Amino acid sequence: MPLTPEQQAEIDALRASPQPTLRTIAPGLEQHLYTAYDVLDHGFIRVIDYMGDDNAICQAARVSYGKGTKQVSQNEGLIRYLMRHWHSTPFEMCEIKLHVKLPVFVARQWIRHRTANVNEYSARYSILDREFYIPEPDQLAAQSTANAQGRGDVLEGAEAARVLEILKSDSARAYDHYEEMLAQDDQKGLARELARMNLPANVYTQWYWKVDLHNLFHFLRLRADSHAQYEIRVYAEAICKLVADWVPFAYSAFEDYRMGGVTLSSKAIECLRRMLQGEEVTQETSGMSKGEWREFEGVIG
Amino acid sequence: MPLTPEQQAEIDALRASPQPTLRTIAPGLEQHLYTAYDVLDHGFIRVIDYMGDDNAICQAARVSYGKGTKQVSQNEGLIRYLMRHWHSTPFEMCEIKLHVKLPVFVARQWIRHRTANVNEYSARYSILDREFYIPEPDQLAAQSTANAQGRGDVLEGAEAARVLEILKSDSARAYDHYEEMLAQDDQKGLARELARMNLPANVYTQWYWKVDLHNLFHFLRLRADSHAQYEIRVYAEAICKLVADWVPFAYSAFEDYRMGGVTLSSKAIECLRRMLQGEEVTQETSGMSKGEWREFEGVIG
Amino acid sequence: MPLTPEQQAEIDALRASPQPTLRTIAPGLEQHLYTAYDVLDHGFIRVIDYMGDDNAICQAARVSYGKGTKQVSQNEGLIRYLMRHWHSTPFEMCEIKLHVKLPVFVARQWIRHRTANVNEYSARYSILDREFYIPEPDQLAAQSTANAQGRGDVLEGAEAARVLEILKSDSARAYDHYEEMLAQDDQKGLARELARMNLPANVYTQWYWKVDLHNLFHFLRLRADSHAQYEIRVYAEAICKLVADWVPFAYSAFEDYRMGGVTLSSKAIECLRRMLQGEEVTQETSGMSKGEWREFEGVIG
Amino acid sequence: MPLTPEQQAEIDALRASPQPTLRTIAPGLEQHLYTAYDVLDHGFIRVIDYMGDDNAICQAARVSYGKGTKQVSQNEGLIRYLMRHWHSTPFEMCEIKLHVKLPVFVARQWIRHRTANVNEYSARYSILDREFYIPEPDQLAAQSTANAQGRGDVLEGAEAARVLEILKSDSARAYDHYEEMLAQDDQKGLARELARMNLPANVYTQWYWKVDLHNLFHFLRLRADSHAQYEIRVYAEAICKLVADWVPFAYSAFEDYRMGGVTLSSKAIECLRRMLQGEEVTQETSGMSKGEWREFEGVIG
Repeated sequence: MPLTPEQQAEIDALRASPQPTLRTIAPGLEQHLYTAYDVLDHGFIRVIDYMGDDNAICQAARVSYGKGTKQVSQNEGLIRYLMRHWHSTPFEMCEIKLHVKLPVFVARQWIRHRTANVNEYSARYSILDREFYIPEPDQLAAQSTANAQGRGDVLEGAEAARVLEILKSDSARAYDHYEEMLAQDDQKGLARELARMNLPANVYTQWYWKVDLHNLFHFLRLRADSHAQYEIRVYAEAICKLVADWVPFAYSAFEDYRMGGVTLSSKAIECLRRMLQGEEVTQETSGMSKGEWREFEGVIG
Repeated sequence: MPLTPEQQAEIDALRASPQPTLRTIAPGLEQHLYTAYDVLDHGFIRVIDYMGDDNAICQAARVSYGKGTKQVSQNEGLIRYLMRHWHSTPFEMCEIKLHVKLPVFVARQWIRHRTANVNEYSARYSILDREFYIPEPDQLAAQSTANAQGRGDVLEGAEAARVLEILKSDSARAYDHYEEMLAQDDQKGLARELARMNLPANVYTQWYWKVDLHNLFHFLRLRADSHAQYEIRVYAEAICKLVADWVPFAYSAFEDYRMGGVTLSSKAIECLRRMLQGEEVTQETSGMSKGEWREFEGVIG
Repeated sequence: MPLTPEQQAEIDALRASPQPTLRTIAPGLEQHLYTAYDVLDHGFIRVIDYMGDDNAICQAARVSYGKGTKQVSQNEGLIRYLMRHWHSTPFEMCEIKLHVKLPVFVARQWIRHRTANVNEYSARYSILDREFYIPEPDQLAAQSTANAQGRGDVLEGAEAARVLEILKSDSARAYDHYEEMLAQDDQKGLARELARMNLPANVYTQWYWKVDLHNLFHFLRLRADSHAQYEIRVYAEAICKLVADWVPFAYSAFEDYRMGGVTLSSKAIECLRRMLQGEEVTQETSGMSKGEWREFEGVIG
Repeated sequence: MPLTPEQQAEIDALRASPQPTLRTIAPGLEQHLYTAYDVLDHGFIRVIDYMGDDNAICQAARVSYGKGTKQVSQNEGLIRYLMRHWHSTPFEMCEIKLHVKLPVFVARQWIRHRTANVNEYSARYSILDREFYIPEPDQLAAQSTANAQGRGDVLEGAEAARVLEILKSDSARAYDHYEEMLAQDDQKGLARELARMNLPANVYTQWYWKVDLHNLFHFLRLRADSHAQYEIRVYAEAICKLVADWVPFAYSAFEDYRMGGVTLSSKAIECLRRMLQGEEVTQETSGMSKGEWREFEGVIG
């Protein structure tokens, strides 16, 4: 169960009592405020607060460009221009705060994005809940044979059953022992900061994560990408939906120029020009390595 | 005149139309939203947007401490505890966005605080206004004889008059020439990105500045301090008033533990203990250098 | 065994072949280069590279202060002055790169220090070793009864034995199952990025960690502090020894003003002044809460 | 004259006395150490210190990828792979420290790159030298008529002469007045922190700037770009030459994938695919705006 009854009661109270503000409102995001969207088996994402909207991006850009921006004054065009030319500071003027529940091994990837603010549940201070991520059968993937850090086919039959059984029983036993170490009749109980070390990386933790839109887009480009590990990608995809409703112009530009965009090397651009002039270019005549050429072929279809 | 008529009209429209939101509201800051508070002769500070309040600090802290925080659950006590023990992340969960008009030499100090988001008016793109900071007579200070980076007595009489005359006439001439280089009958006009180099450091610029509360407190501790240069200190003091209305518990704890607090060295603590036991301690017997001892005497009165 | 034979051979080769450089040398740190110092049962710290020394701090400060610094030109005095007055940028001019092997639950605390560069061993890409942190008996502490995030007495007798047995057997079983999931006769093997989730937080990881001296001091102040968790404190203490040999003046100032220093609130300073004038001050007449007063008594002895 | 005799003497002494170190050496950069390379009329760049080389990038990457990296173990291939796939952390493991003398208006652009360490000459503390940037005649450009923040034709004849005369005489007068305000017979002298405000933005300042290679590449991509303002671009180009000698593999990959690379939107990629299949695509049928199409045509030649 993603939320405690106390958390749900708090959400319901907040959602029932809109208050007047003079600040910028993003109606598309107001409708999502506080609602916990399920991710994986026990995780969730919910928006706690936000600052700014598409208009706030333009407003900040116009401080920079002063009277010179009249000709690009339509918001969508300005936002697309800013995104295309890598102007990052106007996007930093929007901010979002999320409450996220996620497995520890996902949290360990996530935290590498340093330009963000985090308050994580402290297992030195408090006791973690008995909640572990157990993959759905269709995510129980074999090691890729082509890519050292990727997934291959889905495991099936006896192997799948055995793996699931290990994950479930080891999680359960680890948590039983965690509880037993913490407290037992007539015993002192191991310090929480030590007992937690017995819990595996699929245990759930939670945090508040606050980030500006520029850095959030950077996170989403890497983590909503098809090469990202599935278990973090589903969080990134859930955030993408929220951002699309929050700043629709910026999100659309992000999709076109970043998520769907491709960076080509100077060698690749040179090959393209030759091909457009009718030349047949092969890996051997391209100046690219085999790996680069394979990726280039993927881009040009 | 700090704001253009267009900017004032925009402010008036925004202030006239509160909208409902489900987000946290800080009533003390809502009343200041968009209002431009004068600073120096042509500068101002105004709040554009904010996220969070005292309660948001506690809410984030409670994510961290989970069920363990019941006993410090009163908000003010919790906030004072967090401040006293240098817990920075809960304060990062509040954010404020300011529109600031300020002289370039002040902007150059200010920008050294790196953990913030900035969109500055671009003098490559646009033309700067004819606005220069000219100190009030009571701020026309002589170089300190004791402190290489401080101010001494106020200049008076002929010297003061001469200095003011220089500042005014050089500013006026620099701006006249700036305009003449940019455009003149039958001439091409120098590029803006070059012409701006003729303007002195007391010309006004403006920017949007967005920062979290933890980093804002760090800025205020250094810049609202009595050793800060007067021209940045007045901005910091204007911000202090806004923050006091925004997050009253956090600001009060900041005043007590940071602004009014003092860090003593291990040697100073050792001396204090000896003095409290009745021993007469002098610089010679303190183990401190003359400079440290002088500062220590300032602390203990 | 902290280092592989290949790593040790690499170290020996590097240590055997000094090369000439025109850069600043810190002789005190050269002697430690590449040597792995044991921390905990399987961890280590070793210095991979460094930039700067005490003199580099002063050199940077003198760029800032130009001709004005003649009077504080002795290096030790200048460094103490910079530390006392919270000048952070000269200390940022020194940099150190460490190779650290550490348990995952320690890494999770450590990584919260965001202003640093990190390359961590990837368990998506590679297979973790069978190495787990098992506390020494004298570190098998009970939960503190006074402090929700601290340790109390050491566990003894049957309880200690039971806890150690759990930690050892759960680690061993988790690793056996990790291996079995990764590969087994006639099976595909679970993807590494999934199998790792079965490993508990006392498994060892390793990383390269690069940080400037200012941010390192901030890390050390928090993590070498007596309130830090023992398992990260021992790493911080090992780093302290290296830093003391690297930048002896800066480290000595850090010890005096930061590690051994105390920040007193304005209320505490007011009480001190009254006490030094002979007044008897109690918690009731101090204006401080009970918690603050207790901490204040701890400071003044 | 870019360097004072004292600075030159310090350089000569340092260059004359290589010392043994166990650290990684980058021979290509050792030869440039301390030498001041002229930039603009009074500016310079010189390398003060560095950490790491191409091999250090690979070494850090191999910590991450552990035993999995054998197949990409040749350094150049690995570095190109890391650059192509946006792996930033291995490049952060190299660091460089520069001493830069530059006009204030250039410094104001430069400082916007926040992830770096800076110690700037303090004009609160010290007195600035009489050195101002005056453009060469071939850089005295008119405002672009096509691009609000760009340069057009070079000014010629009387207009050029008039502009140069303004820049020179205003600089000279501003400095004369600066000196007169600071000190004069029988007068107190205005505080340095105030007097500096009379100096225009073409006055030279200097700083130590320390940055990791990843963030340096980001700086160079933006500032060595043909759209960057000439006066900062020449600094970026001077740094490019040093970096090419420091980390030749990384610099070559940077040139191919970043400086010479182009990011295409999903719409542009779609057009490319259609064109490669023989379709004639125009702006009208491309789905792109006129601005995007113009830029796209520039890419594909």
